[in-house]
Amino acid sequence: MTKTNAGRFFEDYRVGDVIRHAVPRTVSGGERALYHALYPARHALHSSDDFARACGLAASPLDDLIAFHTVFGKTVPDVSLNAVANLGYAEGRWLEPVWPGDTLRAESEVIGIKQNSNGTSGNVYVRTRGLNQRDVPVLEYVRWVMVRKRDAASPAPDEVVPRLDRVVLPDALVIPDGLDFSDYDFTLAGEPHRWGDYQVGEVIDHVDAVTVEEAEHMLATRLWQNTAKVHFDATFREDGKRLIYGGHVISLARALSFNGLANAQLIVALNAGAHANPCFAGDTVRAWSEVLDRAPTNAPGVGAVRLRLVAHKGPPGDLTLKREDGRYAPHVLLDLDYWALMPL
Amino acid sequence: MTKTNAGRFFEDYRVGDVIRHAVPRTVSGGERALYHALYPARHALHSSDDFARACGLAASPLDDLIAFHTVFGKTVPDVSLNAVANLGYAEGRWLEPVWPGDTLRAESEVIGIKQNSNGTSGNVYVRTRGLNQRDVPVLEYVRWVMVRKRDAASPAPDEVVPRLDRVVLPDALVIPDGLDFSDYDFTLAGEPHRWGDYQVGEVIDHVDAVTVEEAEHMLATRLWQNTAKVHFDATFREDGKRLIYGGHVISLARALSFNGLANAQLIVALNAGAHANPCFAGDTVRAWSEVLDRAPTNAPGVGAVRLRLVAHKGPPGDLTLKREDGRYAPHVLLDLDYWALMPL
Amino acid sequence: MTKTNAGRFFEDYRVGDVIRHAVPRTVSGGERALYHALYPARHALHSSDDFARACGLAASPLDDLIAFHTVFGKTVPDVSLNAVANLGYAEGRWLEPVWPGDTLRAESEVIGIKQNSNGTSGNVYVRTRGLNQRDVPVLEYVRWVMVRKRDAASPAPDEVVPRLDRVVLPDALVIPDGLDFSDYDFTLAGEPHRWGDYQVGEVIDHVDAVTVEEAEHMLATRLWQNTAKVHFDATFREDGKRLIYGGHVISLARALSFNGLANAQLIVALNAGAHANPCFAGDTVRAWSEVLDRAPTNAPGVGAVRLRLVAHKGPPGDLTLKREDGRYAPHVLLDLDYWALMPL
Repeated sequence: MTKTNAGRFFEDYRVGDVIRHAVPRTVSGGERALYHALYPARHALHSSDDFARACGLAASPLDDLIAFHTVFGKTVPDVSLNAVANLGYAEGRWLEPVWPGDTLRAESEVIGIKQNSNGTSGNVYVRTRGLNQRDVPVLEYVRWVMVRKRDAASPAPDEVVPRLDRVVLPDALVIPDGLDFSDYDFTLAGEPHRWGDYQVGEVIDHVDAVTVEEAEHMLATRLWQNTAKVHFDATFREDGKRLIYGGHVISLARALSFNGLANAQLIVALNAGAHANPCFAGDTVRAWSEVLDRAPTNAPGVGAVRLRLVAHKGPPGDLTLKREDGRYAPHVLLDLDYWALMPL
Repeated sequence: MTKTNAGRFFEDYRVGDVIRHAVPRTVSGGERALYHALYPARHALHSSDDFARACGLAASPLDDLIAFHTVFGKTVPDVSLNAVANLGYAEGRWLEPVWPGDTLRAESEVIGIKQNSNGTSGNVYVRTRGLNQRDVPVLEYVRWVMVRKRDAASPAPDEVVPRLDRVVLPDALVIPDGLDFSDYDFTLAGEPHRWGDYQVGEVIDHVDAVTVEEAEHMLATRLWQNTAKVHFDATFREDGKRLIYGGHVISLARALSFNGLANAQLIVALNAGAHANPCFAGDTVRAWSEVLDRAPTNAPGVGAVRLRLVAHKGPPGDLTLKREDGRYAPHVLLDLDYWALMPL
Repeated sequence: MTKTNAGRFFEDYRVGDVIRHAVPRTVSGGERALYHALYPARHALHSSDDFARACGLAASPLDDLIAFHTVFGKTVPDVSLNAVANLGYAEGRWLEPVWPGDTLRAESEVIGIKQNSNGTSGNVYVRTRGLNQRDVPVLEYVRWVMVRKRDAASPAPDEVVPRLDRVVLPDALVIPDGLDFSDYDFTLAGEPHRWGDYQVGEVIDHVDAVTVEEAEHMLATRLWQNTAKVHFDATFREDGKRLIYGGHVISLARALSFNGLANAQLIVALNAGAHANPCFAGDTVRAWSEVLDRAPTNAPGVGAVRLRLVAHKGPPGDLTLKREDGRYAPHVLLDLDYWALMPL
């Protein structure tokens, strides 16, 4: 019985430790097809090899969130198996497209640690990198989680809280080699709106909605080899509910955002993110976006747009984000801050 | 909020307009595997590269209905987002096999328009073509839908109702290049019945049944990038039900028809089709077929058979199609008229 | 109506008959991705091409159970469509890895037959072989099932009960060509435990659990083109339940066993197996293993371990296998006896 992995507890992390996560994964056209079955994903660059070639790429890369979920899933047994909460993301950047046939693995460095005042848990900060079969980083991001202590009596470690950028600066965005939106086909992409048409402060209600089923979120979460019990085992929580993986909500919201942001083709940075409230099967998920910033890039025809993406389970058109006390409204599921690339 | 696509209304169609639909799609072995997971599909030509090669093809093409659903899905945002009903199909022909790696896009020409007497909606007729990455047409069909008017007070357009063939003539059927059933292996295909064994008027009850789940029809419908809200959003209809995409029922019925029609390997024409009654999760779907016609072809060993394929949610063996008043019996879901190719 | 396959009855089997099963199947990266979505499968050799190459293989073969299910599914219409019970397995051996792009077909020889004392059914023993597109056997196993008689009055056949080995001897295990665990990366594989760390008699509770949904087991069972009505048709059983394909439980349990047996990379033999009790949607499946034996092999760095794999739907930590009367405890779903390969 001692051969199973009970996961790490708060005491098991030391700042500077580098964890090589297990189970590398080769991804292919199968993962791409499943992504389209699981999410209403329609961004043309991730749907069509020909569209991607017309944008200067060798073929259609796998969805940016396939890369994210695959890397994230690898970290779960080492980082969040005993996590009480997934607290935040920062400094996320996509560094290289992932192509069918690539093999991904992940490493995390512990960059911060801070015991909570109640003495039973603490926050752990890790910087995770996904690498392909040539050891080229494809993705990196910081995540911090609240992890249970094994023993409340164990002494508190020295506190290290990393200084994290609130936003990835436009100069730090990595544009895929060769990307060129000069001859972008807006009709094939599905919408006429270009970079210049989006104004900072503009809010877009994405109109569509998806009611989530147990089978769907479990298929998705397993696909990323994410093993957290709470997503799969209806006997794990006292209320008999299976908590939906937060990344499932990210992908749902991003896919729903096609309607109004069809040309926000590639995600290149994750500035911040909060899973505001839990999502369960039966919830009907909607999404809206707010334009937070815009920046030019060096790539031909390519602009960057910074977006807030909010997922909620409220009625259509309810764009409330926070309550009067500053906390998230109870129907809000996700508040994500990211950079995407659009045609000028 | 004006950036989202509200879909076209009846007033937005003009006869002669050609709509280039958005979001081209590269299909692969992933879509093939999902098709086998979603439907009990067993026709050998779409299951085995080796079987297909023994029939003169380069490899196993993707299921004919994968081509249909992919093309159909592209048309939804432009044709049927505000449709009240999907009224009919005609003059459908498969023109070229779709291979893994192909990229499909779709175009539709408006060929007819007719306001309804109540003034709040009208019928729109479109001829849709699916094209591959070499701009070769892979599929064409006529579909007509009832679409809401934006404004009941807007004037009725000049009425144009296209003359449509009630059936695709055998001479117009397109046989895939190289198809040769001379050395057909009936054992591997699963049944001994050949073209000559099917008599016009013969009825085959396909015996098997599938009880449909919400997760399944949503996975399937999303896979074809079909975005109609009514399939995904449990809050959209007043009764809280998600309407199952009619094409899901077509694929279920076609797959169930293997049992008795295992050698009807390829669909080459869609003569007509009616979604007689809505299908919802929890329904148990059964199918039966009637042989409507037979015709020789020029390809070696290949005959064509015209079939009526009926899906229903009634008890086993209930082959009732219509009520005394000529309307479809309430348990009938689908009445499809198509041509398939069989070994002589 | 006579064109549909009613399946074989007990009277239809003769010892020595060889049945060529229908519908060959080409498997690809799509099936691999679906396997990861359907089961929490994480064994690195089936997840990563690079990991497999570091173990001497050309690429990552498809999961051994993909091969098993695909071959098994082909036999259903000929062997178990009218089966009352799936009674046992023996002498199962994996003979050659299955690679993406391979086409599998199956043949079964009837090797035994024995009417039951009640005269209404009998046991049929078949030796099934799966073959790839080069007619190389990839898998063979013996299975016996209880099959209904068409007519209780038909005479009993001469009884032939094959002598079956209770366990595949270590010398008979087939190691994939080139397999070499000399440079095995235990960190990437996920656990440090090597062949020498497992003691005969040791029991490992795999801790994780999965609550099963209807959509999931139907997707899986269809993927293997297994057509038994009882898995898909909620009107088939009087209690309105869909019986979950026993192989689905095998794959669930094997995937759950990663936690404690991450290095048991390849299944090479199936010694015995019993589906102790039926599994239905809503059940939460757990698994535990017992080490039954160990043996060296001729391949560099590779040892064989014989394992009992038990799946159950009881509470966490309930490792009861049998009741006092020697029958399986009611919460036990599966009792499987197999050989796997591990690094020394």
